[in-house]
Amino acid sequence: MIRFFGGRVLSFTAGLEISDAEVWTSGDKIFYVGPRREDAPDFEREIDLCGNLLIPGFKSAHTHSAMVFARSLADDMPLQPWLFTKIFPLEAKLLPEHIYSLNKLAVMEYLTSGITASFDMYYHREAFAQSNIDCGFRSVICGVGGEYAAMEAEYSRFNALSPLISYIPGFHAEYTASMDELSAVAALAARYKAPVFAHNSETEIEVLECISRHGKTPTELFDALGMFEHGGGGFHCVHFSENDIEIFAQRGAYAVTCPGSNGKLASGTAPLSAMLRRGVPLAIGTDGASSNNALDFFREMYLSCVFQKLAQKDAAAMDADTVLRMATVGGAQAMGLFDCDTISEGKQADLVVIDLQKPNMQPVTNVTKNLVYSGSKANVALTMVAGRILYENGEFFIGEEAGAVFEKCNKILLEITA
Amino acid sequence: MIRFFGGRVLSFTAGLEISDAEVWTSGDKIFYVGPRREDAPDFEREIDLCGNLLIPGFKSAHTHSAMVFARSLADDMPLQPWLFTKIFPLEAKLLPEHIYSLNKLAVMEYLTSGITASFDMYYHREAFAQSNIDCGFRSVICGVGGEYAAMEAEYSRFNALSPLISYIPGFHAEYTASMDELSAVAALAARYKAPVFAHNSETEIEVLECISRHGKTPTELFDALGMFEHGGGGFHCVHFSENDIEIFAQRGAYAVTCPGSNGKLASGTAPLSAMLRRGVPLAIGTDGASSNNALDFFREMYLSCVFQKLAQKDAAAMDADTVLRMATVGGAQAMGLFDCDTISEGKQADLVVIDLQKPNMQPVTNVTKNLVYSGSKANVALTMVAGRILYENGEFFIGEEAGAVFEKCNKILLEITA
Repeated sequence: MIRFFGGRVLSFTAGLEISDAEVWTSGDKIFYVGPRREDAPDFEREIDLCGNLLIPGFKSAHTHSAMVFARSLADDMPLQPWLFTKIFPLEAKLLPEHIYSLNKLAVMEYLTSGITASFDMYYHREAFAQSNIDCGFRSVICGVGGEYAAMEAEYSRFNALSPLISYIPGFHAEYTASMDELSAVAALAARYKAPVFAHNSETEIEVLECISRHGKTPTELFDALGMFEHGGGGFHCVHFSENDIEIFAQRGAYAVTCPGSNGKLASGTAPLSAMLRRGVPLAIGTDGASSNNALDFFREMYLSCVFQKLAQKDAAAMDADTVLRMATVGGAQAMGLFDCDTISEGKQADLVVIDLQKPNMQPVTNVTKNLVYSGSKANVALTMVAGRILYENGEFFIGEEAGAVFEKCNKILLEITA
Repeated sequence: MIRFFGGRVLSFTAGLEISDAEVWTSGDKIFYVGPRREDAPDFEREIDLCGNLLIPGFKSAHTHSAMVFARSLADDMPLQPWLFTKIFPLEAKLLPEHIYSLNKLAVMEYLTSGITASFDMYYHREAFAQSNIDCGFRSVICGVGGEYAAMEAEYSRFNALSPLISYIPGFHAEYTASMDELSAVAALAARYKAPVFAHNSETEIEVLECISRHGKTPTELFDALGMFEHGGGGFHCVHFSENDIEIFAQRGAYAVTCPGSNGKLASGTAPLSAMLRRGVPLAIGTDGASSNNALDFFREMYLSCVFQKLAQKDAAAMDADTVLRMATVGGAQAMGLFDCDTISEGKQADLVVIDLQKPNMQPVTNVTKNLVYSGSKANVALTMVAGRILYENGEFFIGEEAGAVFEKCNKILLEITA
């Protein structure tokens, strides 16, 4: 058992109240949350928080982890030419062993910003899953469409593979999917009462082309196919109409916002405030490093707030506390990780220690606002996934040396760009 | 002498070329930049960069350092009510000794993000200057208007006080200055052939009210008073007309953009691309922590880029390399720190070591784009000002313990909010 004591805990079980509870973990779970107890057992390790803050890990509810290969490789271009002329040709060269190492690099980056789970959509999912398992990192694999039988096989295989891995049906986007493929995804969702996720309304042109093809927005099309019968949601959801918002609200479908990526590709600002008013559940994703270019939840939280304020010319358009909940509880629930959302007994021990003894967190006036408005990777002192400390004080404990992962990834880049 | 070797150097002397030069510092200056030499002297310290990157320090060309007291104290409000109902009443209670400690906290935060100089506008400038001198930090004090004689006395005193301190005439803003005050500032600038800086066109209402009072935008008014005869510029410059841009271009006046503050207060996005096209020189400021809320140049560089892309719906609207130059060379020149802009022999040794051996900087494809798009405070390994290492591997060397500064600042906050 590991004991965290002497600090503050933001458990998300009672609003955003911060307590001075102790937290004990046992195996992959949280064993105890509460005041100091006299019957404390012998701990494997006791971690004095020294006044610092324990929070549930952030969840990157949309990403393409292995796309770290394309970080800073083709910047300052709009989405569609960027995707078709720069990214697709390179990723066609990626092999499973490349994905294995590239994902490790992404996992390391997630850990540095307190992200404890990824909702990932990419190729070579077998190698991807193994990479996460070997690191001890949690990931939900999002399907990418295809034939029904193959999707069903993946659904069964990945949901049974490891406590760290799960699988949710999905497809890339309307503009890359055939109607047969969309129907197959809908059939899989119906068969397993499963949610469905896809890129949705990321750019204006995507929506306009979908309307010209189908007479419907992507959201209307997916809903008409019965995709959201059992929940699910969309990645990006930037160019959402009032009706799209209404559909998501009615279906309880999650809009996963990726402001860093949407900003850099000039795709636009998702109407998060309008979605909140209508009751659409929200989560946040980093998207891949190819477009973002950092996998940094402090950036994403900050931008989720500030882009709303700018777009609506209203400094009260979005507040930090709402965003903090989206980043943790919202993400976990969007990803079906219902045992990874709060710090409560019996939940998974996916925990982050935030160092408040840094100038950007001082004075300690309003901890939750500080997290969103002035927090940075430099405040992440420790990241634990499923009860294992994977990152602490700048060091990684993922079964491979950081330098070795960097070296492999630089070599991969040389190979595929040769 | 201190020797940096074994890494890469982005000197800004030849575009954005990165070399593998050595850099030696002697006293407060850069003594040598070039290939390994056989006649190397005995060094006080030799720092192996291990492949990491040496850059000139970032310059925060607009800030109110001591306003760290108001970090996260009143968020999610528009500028004018925020200023008049929340901030002004509290800052009226601040004493010189408060400013001394609050500025130390800000300096610590600057150092963590590689900022080596501040262009600061605030009260109790004597205590402020002493605080910087005691830290070893560089600051340019911007005047805040007032009577001619008092301004002239400050001009002479602060420009002679210390190699770390200089003074440029200025005033808060049109909406807080009388015409007498504006004329006095213009007279001071004329007398000493000095540049003048002020808040300018931060919000739309500020511009509209100025036009209704004077029939001119703030820029037109200041220019008509002869303020920019010897250069200078404006802080924020968000709501700039074509004519305002033209005036700044003709005068060589600097637009200092503060995107973090403008975003959080929903003030808008400065037309940086249009300014660049017309040849307006640009620099970047953090503004105070009260509105931003972090003093983080990685955030400001990133936002300087991304806000342009979003506002213009064009992913190529602003590129990372331009922003990097604004953050370093542009800032130094705006602040009159002409010996702090590049890594060259004889210049001041205001240097930062960027740790590239972190996942967010890998693979090492394009270092300058990585700095702007994925860099973070966690990549700042060392910050040197005037040849003294003030921050290294998370530790501060500013003559006072970090914990003592934190404690004093928390106490000040309790006192003024009591």
